[in-house]
Amino acid sequence: MEVKILKDILETNDKIADMNAAKFKENGVAVLNFMSSPGAGKTTLVIKTLEAMRERGIELAVIDGDIASSVDADRIAEHGVVAIQINTGGACHLDANMIRNGLDKVDLTIIELLIIENVGNLVCPAEFKLGEDKKVMLLSVTEGDDKPHKYPLMFSEADALVINKIDMIGATNFDMEGFKKTILDMNPDVEMFIVSCVTGEGLEAWGEWVANQVREINAK
Amino acid sequence: MEVKILKDILETNDKIADMNAAKFKENGVAVLNFMSSPGAGKTTLVIKTLEAMRERGIELAVIDGDIASSVDADRIAEHGVVAIQINTGGACHLDANMIRNGLDKVDLTIIELLIIENVGNLVCPAEFKLGEDKKVMLLSVTEGDDKPHKYPLMFSEADALVINKIDMIGATNFDMEGFKKTILDMNPDVEMFIVSCVTGEGLEAWGEWVANQVREINAK
Repeated sequence: MEVKILKDILETNDKIADMNAAKFKENGVAVLNFMSSPGAGKTTLVIKTLEAMRERGIELAVIDGDIASSVDADRIAEHGVVAIQINTGGACHLDANMIRNGLDKVDLTIIELLIIENVGNLVCPAEFKLGEDKKVMLLSVTEGDDKPHKYPLMFSEADALVINKIDMIGATNFDMEGFKKTILDMNPDVEMFIVSCVTGEGLEAWGEWVANQVREINAK
Repeated sequence: MEVKILKDILETNDKIADMNAAKFKENGVAVLNFMSSPGAGKTTLVIKTLEAMRERGIELAVIDGDIASSVDADRIAEHGVVAIQINTGGACHLDANMIRNGLDKVDLTIIELLIIENVGNLVCPAEFKLGEDKKVMLLSVTEGDDKPHKYPLMFSEADALVINKIDMIGATNFDMEGFKKTILDMNPDVEMFIVSCVTGEGLEAWGEWVANQVREINAK
């Protein structure tokens, strides 16, 4: 019974996600869904990404999912981009319908990139498609290198994996070589970026990857 | 419709949690439910806690919740205590029924303390009572000081808050005084512990608090 209900919820979600995806495509908007644990650095990476897109003349907007506050959307809006806050009312993930409703507040005709910052959670966000082109997962090295075994769905479905807070690795026992091997066994096609939003390490390559997503969408 | 189902699920959960609590009380077992983000250090704190209880002659067991692996239970079992792994099969939290089933494998008559390590998630674990005496929340300073605004239920319901990885605070912009003020505004009765499982800072006070929970249960 419970399983049946969950299946229905996911099927309905997928249908709405497909409608969102069609709308994004129609408007030539590339969409990235950022997912991570709480505190892995999603909002800071969003800000670094929008700076990198500004340098390249790429217009973007951000949809920010949170349980209860608008802390993240406020931080992003300070940087002069449209930032839509969606409060999930207790739910631990964004779903496609929340995105559909949020799109009323975004003018898709003037942007080329939409970044969705999901709720901080390594479990349910991986199950709910939103209509995005690519799933971007962040892991900070301070969380430990054992996370792929514990949250396999998220790690195996990511199109890009940003390994963040590399400036702090010296204070941890994170085994980067072992970690990379684990990831590539689970998800051989994933693009990996090792970055620090404090020192700027790796952000150039990351910005280039994001810009490429926009170019690919526009080429279609 | 969806809300009604959720309400039913939570009511059923609460009834089973009360049954679990009665069973714990009958056997004189104090029960702590450890919750945090992925990678905040729950498993390491469990290991430090069991070492502290061993020094005091307090027998304990651990129930470990995870989506898919037994990484954590394996680490704990290496330290010579009973560690029961519960795989939630994708669910982002433990519920009271999973604990009830797990109890078949724990001899409650020979332990005084049961530690439940919940799934790494700051959202849903706060909603599902398990029958515990106290809710213990961990936050690592590397996650940032803005988390209470974003996950208010977890922070307002915690009986104890362990602020972990204090050895790394120098590499972060975590504002401890501001953070403490925020917490005490939300949850004036919470007990706070500032610790490092690497340097050992704060672990003596933490161990004493846990031992006191056991003593209080035994005095009832």
